[in-house]
Amino acid sequence: MEKNVIYAALLGAGTVGSGVYKLAGMLSSEMVQKTGACLVIKKVLVRNLYKEREGIPQDVLTDNWNEILEDREIQLVIEVMGGVEPANTYITQAILAGKQVVTANKDLLAEHGQELLTLAENRGVDLQFEAAVAGAIPIIRPLKQSLSASMLTEIMGIVNGTTNYILTKMTEENMSYEEALRQATDLGYAEADPTADVEGYDAGRKVAIMASLAYNSGVVFSDVYTEGITRITADDVRYAKEFGYVIKLVGVAALSDGQIEARVHPMLIPAQHPLASVRDSFNAVFVHGEACDDAMFMGRGAGMMPTASAVMGDVIIIMRNILHDNCGWNGGVAYKKIPVKPIEETKSRFFVRLKVSDRPGALANIAGVLGNNDVSIAQVVQKPSKDGIAELVIITGSVLERHFNDAMVILKGMSVLKEICGEIRVYGE
Amino acid sequence: MEKNVIYAALLGAGTVGSGVYKLAGMLSSEMVQKTGACLVIKKVLVRNLYKEREGIPQDVLTDNWNEILEDREIQLVIEVMGGVEPANTYITQAILAGKQVVTANKDLLAEHGQELLTLAENRGVDLQFEAAVAGAIPIIRPLKQSLSASMLTEIMGIVNGTTNYILTKMTEENMSYEEALRQATDLGYAEADPTADVEGYDAGRKVAIMASLAYNSGVVFSDVYTEGITRITADDVRYAKEFGYVIKLVGVAALSDGQIEARVHPMLIPAQHPLASVRDSFNAVFVHGEACDDAMFMGRGAGMMPTASAVMGDVIIIMRNILHDNCGWNGGVAYKKIPVKPIEETKSRFFVRLKVSDRPGALANIAGVLGNNDVSIAQVVQKPSKDGIAELVIITGSVLERHFNDAMVILKGMSVLKEICGEIRVYGE
Repeated sequence: MEKNVIYAALLGAGTVGSGVYKLAGMLSSEMVQKTGACLVIKKVLVRNLYKEREGIPQDVLTDNWNEILEDREIQLVIEVMGGVEPANTYITQAILAGKQVVTANKDLLAEHGQELLTLAENRGVDLQFEAAVAGAIPIIRPLKQSLSASMLTEIMGIVNGTTNYILTKMTEENMSYEEALRQATDLGYAEADPTADVEGYDAGRKVAIMASLAYNSGVVFSDVYTEGITRITADDVRYAKEFGYVIKLVGVAALSDGQIEARVHPMLIPAQHPLASVRDSFNAVFVHGEACDDAMFMGRGAGMMPTASAVMGDVIIIMRNILHDNCGWNGGVAYKKIPVKPIEETKSRFFVRLKVSDRPGALANIAGVLGNNDVSIAQVVQKPSKDGIAELVIITGSVLERHFNDAMVILKGMSVLKEICGEIRVYGE
Repeated sequence: MEKNVIYAALLGAGTVGSGVYKLAGMLSSEMVQKTGACLVIKKVLVRNLYKEREGIPQDVLTDNWNEILEDREIQLVIEVMGGVEPANTYITQAILAGKQVVTANKDLLAEHGQELLTLAENRGVDLQFEAAVAGAIPIIRPLKQSLSASMLTEIMGIVNGTTNYILTKMTEENMSYEEALRQATDLGYAEADPTADVEGYDAGRKVAIMASLAYNSGVVFSDVYTEGITRITADDVRYAKEFGYVIKLVGVAALSDGQIEARVHPMLIPAQHPLASVRDSFNAVFVHGEACDDAMFMGRGAGMMPTASAVMGDVIIIMRNILHDNCGWNGGVAYKKIPVKPIEETKSRFFVRLKVSDRPGALANIAGVLGNNDVSIAQVVQKPSKDGIAELVIITGSVLERHFNDAMVILKGMSVLKEICGEIRVYGE
């Protein structure tokens, strides 16, 4: 076979970028066998040319995007810089210039994924992004391919490793939220500003991407309801355990009543559910389809080499496509317009803890308010009274969120009610 | 868009065939949107033309393969009849005639997979087989695509639902093997002749297919060491639990010392390992790669609709390929020749139960024999003596199988030793 070379540019030389550069080196002979061509990373775009990058030779570094864009030899752009801009501009220009693109950028795809996919389709260019959701777990391509005949009705994902680490520590080592967050920060799992993780924004972006692919209808980040884990307390975790549940931050992309539900929030998961056993910083995506039934995919959602392996899997596919003159069939362009259901119109079960004055009739009053608002009670435990305050721990039946909210507003106005804590959704119907 | 039609033939109208026919009907409008063409199943090959097939009109049935082969309108053959022959002949002829092929046939692929893939590649024809391993779980395509940059070193799969159901019942409900098998038969999980399942042959075929794809080197069923679950007793299960393990029938495809290990046998899995929580008839494939770290895929390994969903996922991909004039890039053709390691040269830890005369020095003698044969003891429990017979339950360190076997032969010749039971491999090093 004639020796083919495919030239690529890498945008970004942070953790993932360094991993991609390293893995490309480790796989170089394997790639020739797999694809028939050699991969050469000709340029690496960085902001600071003078910072030393371990394993990346100084002479491939550039801080000038146009040098890459205008290099006609470069057929493939691998974007691992993150953030919406300038990534969006660079990728758009790369597609317009006929370059193939791999990106791991969830922020960008959750905003502009459909525009970019449409542009790539019109230009006959590959746009691959397996690493953007759940790192090393193959989920993007299965959603477009193998699972596309499964009539999916629900996706539930633990797609943020930082929050799963924190919740695991709270569950298994009885840590407080603050302690667990501190440990996650010390270990480098949480960033200095953990907002995007702990408020569920990161998971929300992944939900937008998965929902778009699973239901063939564009869903963007702002469509996704997000609620983080900052209000979860050690008490919530302990009571959940008593009822046989584990608390996880779950991203849901479901189809119900002809609408898409797209939401991220903490959820009580039954201890025997496969998602309950996904510990530490692992990610997992659980899907249910009318045809495939239940399936779950688990693995590393982040980290240098796991993310790099997903990026390089895309690179290998694109190299084959280039050599077979076969780029541009990405799939994933939405061909439906399905409305996203407002969170108030979704149904959930709720776990809630009520601190009430321990006097006759209190439970009856509370139960009455719940009942009047269509909130049925599935389980209730009254904890022994302390200083005249009793604690009621309730798990409701499936209820419309707005009915549940109405009931909580009324309860808050009652004199017997001292405090409402918890309010966490519960898996199941 | 001009209305395109792609004509297909279905070979086989058993459980899976009926499921495929049904699902193709349910997905018909969705498929037009996904692929740009309509799928019409023009012929269904059956042995008995006069048997009623629920949901399949009589007039598409044929018992004449040549009618399909010679129909130039039929571009796609979906083989779900199973067995090596005549499936091999039909698929070979279909490929030679330029028809694209989807098959769910593990028996065939574990024998002739590489020949058929090579033939398809030479003829520029698609040959897809996602349903052949682990049913609805996308594992074949990820092994060829997303995971191809992960530098996989080990695959461990629970890839036979029948035996997993039996072992789950033995573990959770303390059933004997015979009772659990009877229940599996009653429920239709086990066939009248359960040999292929309980002896590990079915799992062995799937190991051959996965090993070939993961390591890009042809492995056939006869290369795979198989040992079934027929000798697992309720006592084994109970003692395993005491040590914190669950017994599973595991298919292993690993790379060690530049050789491929391909084997199926019962294994003690630590209770906290993700594979341990795969219950009932669910399947799961656990992979470890130098780049991706640990990942696991779980789902339905069999059943009418789950298997049909995997088949139809392949059909949708091929329809797109036909319309984009882009068939024949299957991947999966082995480009290496890696030897398969004989089972005697593999290393495992072992769980073994020894019934010995309860007299002074017995343990010392036994420990001496083990030590002389390089078998280290990781854990040992001596059960209280009954009628002068004590039971020793031992978990060894990692040992070459032939050394372990040598030690067992010597022990069997010792007068203090009354019986050796168990002898089950243990996960880990």
